[in-house]
Amino acid sequence: MDTALLIDDVRLTPVLIADPPLLNTQGVHQPYTPRLVIEVITRGGVSGVGETYGDGAFLDLARPLAGALPGRPVTDVNGLPGLAERVCGGSPTPEEGVDAGGLRGVRTAGKTRASVVSGFEVACLDALGKTLGLPVHALLGGKVRDTVDYSAYLFYRWAAHPEGGEKDDWGAALDPAGIVAQARRLVAEHGFRSFKLKGGVFEPDLEIAAVRALAEAFPGRPLRLDPNGAWSVETALYVAERLAGVLEYLEDPVSGTDGMAAVAAATDMPLATNMCVTTFDEIAEAFTRDAVQVVLSDHHYWGGLHRTRELAAVCGAFGVGLSMHSNTHLGISLAAMTHVAATVPRLDHACDSHYPWQTEDVITARHVFRDGRLTVPDAPGLGVELDRGRLAALHRRWLDDDGTLRERDDAAAMRKADPAWTTPPTPRW
Amino acid sequence: MDTALLIDDVRLTPVLIADPPLLNTQGVHQPYTPRLVIEVITRGGVSGVGETYGDGAFLDLARPLAGALPGRPVTDVNGLPGLAERVCGGSPTPEEGVDAGGLRGVRTAGKTRASVVSGFEVACLDALGKTLGLPVHALLGGKVRDTVDYSAYLFYRWAAHPEGGEKDDWGAALDPAGIVAQARRLVAEHGFRSFKLKGGVFEPDLEIAAVRALAEAFPGRPLRLDPNGAWSVETALYVAERLAGVLEYLEDPVSGTDGMAAVAAATDMPLATNMCVTTFDEIAEAFTRDAVQVVLSDHHYWGGLHRTRELAAVCGAFGVGLSMHSNTHLGISLAAMTHVAATVPRLDHACDSHYPWQTEDVITARHVFRDGRLTVPDAPGLGVELDRGRLAALHRRWLDDDGTLRERDDAAAMRKADPAWTTPPTPRW
Repeated sequence: MDTALLIDDVRLTPVLIADPPLLNTQGVHQPYTPRLVIEVITRGGVSGVGETYGDGAFLDLARPLAGALPGRPVTDVNGLPGLAERVCGGSPTPEEGVDAGGLRGVRTAGKTRASVVSGFEVACLDALGKTLGLPVHALLGGKVRDTVDYSAYLFYRWAAHPEGGEKDDWGAALDPAGIVAQARRLVAEHGFRSFKLKGGVFEPDLEIAAVRALAEAFPGRPLRLDPNGAWSVETALYVAERLAGVLEYLEDPVSGTDGMAAVAAATDMPLATNMCVTTFDEIAEAFTRDAVQVVLSDHHYWGGLHRTRELAAVCGAFGVGLSMHSNTHLGISLAAMTHVAATVPRLDHACDSHYPWQTEDVITARHVFRDGRLTVPDAPGLGVELDRGRLAALHRRWLDDDGTLRERDDAAAMRKADPAWTTPPTPRW
Repeated sequence: MDTALLIDDVRLTPVLIADPPLLNTQGVHQPYTPRLVIEVITRGGVSGVGETYGDGAFLDLARPLAGALPGRPVTDVNGLPGLAERVCGGSPTPEEGVDAGGLRGVRTAGKTRASVVSGFEVACLDALGKTLGLPVHALLGGKVRDTVDYSAYLFYRWAAHPEGGEKDDWGAALDPAGIVAQARRLVAEHGFRSFKLKGGVFEPDLEIAAVRALAEAFPGRPLRLDPNGAWSVETALYVAERLAGVLEYLEDPVSGTDGMAAVAAATDMPLATNMCVTTFDEIAEAFTRDAVQVVLSDHHYWGGLHRTRELAAVCGAFGVGLSMHSNTHLGISLAAMTHVAATVPRLDHACDSHYPWQTEDVITARHVFRDGRLTVPDAPGLGVELDRGRLAALHRRWLDDDGTLRERDDAAAMRKADPAWTTPPTPRW
């Protein structure tokens, strides 16, 4: 193999990026959220970029993995999971406990490792594509669509963070009218044609009312509601009944496969998840019990773009729908999401993305949604370029932080406004 | 994208290759078997090769697909299934009926199309790899092993075809001693360390005796028996009980998922299949019913190398083992098998290959097994080169055939020795 394809160096740049005061069942987004930018530089002098979570547990795994990469071919992405397991095996990542920021179910060392591997895999694919003059989608077998649909991601939110941070002009959205106004502006700016409301924030009847208001404002458009597992089975069925024919699916109404299976057995409402099925080990039980009808894939969760394609194949074989989950992310990950989404034969629903809420980025040209869609890039690699000035500025913010923002903690952020706040019990309602 | 990667031309070359008189439950291999060699030539002047079944039904689909490829990028392998469905949709392939040669369960248009697509996908990947200077395994994310294990594929056989054909010096193998002698020679020549006996030929007690003789001759080596669905559930359980602890798995003891599930429910013997699970549509029922414990993948069945990797992921998610099936094939397909096998994280058993029985090939340098293994090629593409003289000679044989050998039909071949032979009922025993 051409030695130009051997990895020469890996650079890890943790950053803090501005995040609006978006509410969820655990609390509120911090004013700044940690992300990790990964650069893989080949001996040929090509730099590929990837992105993943930036909390300490991820950095702790990323550092030894970065150290193990030089000398390996950038083509060898299938070897990354095994390599990560070997070099990060003794990491202190907690095996148990709820992921405060990600709302992705029980945290395990394997999940954390998969997220780290994902960022490295994307960086390798970007470097490989740039070297070969091929877009990342071509490295995955080629796109089967030229555009990828995204949905408007609606949040209950405050006008501003109590402790400061970047300001925006969106104002508060704390009731049906506020959510509809937010949706109208997202449609005006980006052309979205489907809507997802992050729920679990208010009592279910209030969130039902918000969804109904959306249905009235945007008749016929696909709508979704995601309380992040905040409800009991009974509450989930209560909501499902009232939103029958209104929602295209209900996302993680309850926590865990047992609960999802119980809800699914009692309603025709399709259930989606990015909480009870987030690893390959969790698939068999959920699918054989018909606990979920749609999996919201996320290449950060599943270990990269190749693994996301494999997940799509598993879903296809079992008649389970596929869509895409998003957490706070930069334009690097949005490019990666778009490339892999372009290659899966069945993508049943518009993908989620927080991107419109992220006013800061580390790429030179922000992605632009048209009619709610992104055009699949055909430029080499991901089709994005690092803005090194912006990267340095956001890294400086991370360096200057006293440590309190380097770990995303939505409950801690909520305590800035409500000192008595604790992570709500599950189920909350 | 570089126009050098656009497909300029596709060449289809049907051939007839020598095949020994190997017996199975439906009859005997013909003296010559049809295969189709596919060449995809890029505008950059690079030629990639693939191989698939050569019977008329496959040729009928390959021709329109070949005609639709020029102008498309050779990177676009994900688009091949959809393209094939569009251009071959109206083909006259029978939707029902047993595949006489392939022993792959019910034949459908979709299965035939997947096999045709597979040959084109491999040719595209070979051309792409040669263009980029990368081995095919690197185009699939990289190898995770440097060698791939193959098993000795043992057959009851005659010394010669009744109607002539190429001669070999293996002699007949029609009893336990003959099978053991055949195994010893395959070990001496290729170093195989595991063994598969094609069964369904003689009464089960005789085949049990042959397996026991192998176990005695090769203590501790993995053994398998494959009657191609020729048994009843009762017979399968009778054999499973007598070969408990002797076989690593029993392959397709009965036909169909219902029967396999019934056998699996009543024995601890792992069941493998390349008959009841040969498409993604057949997975869900078989896996949820725990009807099979090992899937014998075959990129010709599953639609190519990418799809084989996806199958591996589905198996992995459900704790189902993975190995690899083989039918009569040339060195092009053996290279493809080796590349994809090298990339899947879990390959639980040595792969099957008929290759040692194929004395004729269309590549310049035959593959060489060492210790029963093939080294994964790191040369660009598949790492094989067409021998155009041999290709022309084997194509000439196909042209000169009056049509009787162009369709593989093991029952018809058997009738040359036994005019009263008909395809046995299922179950046969």
